[in-house]
Amino acid sequence: MKGKVIIFTGDGKGKTTASLGMALRALGHGKKVVIIQFLKKGEYGETKSGILEIHQFGKEKFVFEPKKEDFEEAKKAMKFAREALRRKPFMLILDEINVAMALKLVPFEEVVKLIEEREETHMVLTGRNAPKKIIRIADLVTEMKKIKHYYDKGIEAIEGLEY
Amino acid sequence: MKGKVIIFTGDGKGKTTASLGMALRALGHGKKVVIIQFLKKGEYGETKSGILEIHQFGKEKFVFEPKKEDFEEAKKAMKFAREALRRKPFMLILDEINVAMALKLVPFEEVVKLIEEREETHMVLTGRNAPKKIIRIADLVTEMKKIKHYYDKGIEAIEGLEY
Repeated sequence: MKGKVIIFTGDGKGKTTASLGMALRALGHGKKVVIIQFLKKGEYGETKSGILEIHQFGKEKFVFEPKKEDFEEAKKAMKFAREALRRKPFMLILDEINVAMALKLVPFEEVVKLIEEREETHMVLTGRNAPKKIIRIADLVTEMKKIKHYYDKGIEAIEGLEY
Repeated sequence: MKGKVIIFTGDGKGKTTASLGMALRALGHGKKVVIIQFLKKGEYGETKSGILEIHQFGKEKFVFEPKKEDFEEAKKAMKFAREALRRKPFMLILDEINVAMALKLVPFEEVVKLIEEREETHMVLTGRNAPKKIIRIADLVTEMKKIKHYYDKGIEAIEGLEY
């Protein structure tokens, strides 16, 4: 069976979080999971948990206008993803890759190629603004829609909740 | 600071999954998390992972028309939730409680009372059809909206992805 392509997109909380839940569930069945985080670098609850294989490619600060090093990091992440896929994990999570595509840090065609080469590996792609062409080839797409968020009341990210 | 009330609702994939991701993230920071699953019983990836404290109250088969034992299980779950809250965990996850409320297995007022008594504990409520009154008192609400799902193509739940 070909692996499923699963997308979590939208402006609401729960995209990366759901991908972590998927990783945990698969691990519970003793399956191999590789997580690649685009545009991120830092000690989060998920990296500190010690049970997930997480590889981060990014800076600590959020990228608004990509610079040369952001392109380099994204390129490294894609190279790592291709290599990880060759090891045929049960699941490959590409966290925030939708944002990386939207920012043109990752060429859309490269992601399509990666998806086509997945064989039995399930792929999970997260991040806002998933390109329509990626949605078209996906098997499962959930839009995490913000109904309300305490960020809008000026409350900052809380340790253990957002990171 | 009062704990946040977080709701994952909607018809898309990622509600329970996001709650598991939140648990993992909090655990990574060394925080205490209690998960209570309503309407569920079985060996899932999350129960087999061995790292989460999960208490299930339900039957293996999905409840369409609640019977006496479903009411009893839901009552036990609520009692357990009240006791768990007294231990002041960082996070209390009430998985599928929105469905339990929608099916009238759990009186809405009891859940409001539990929320009011949370003190610093963050509460995560998952399941479709979250009642409007619960949404009103929540701090963060995400609607997981199904854009597409392979279930609609007749594909059944996959081990490591759905359970």
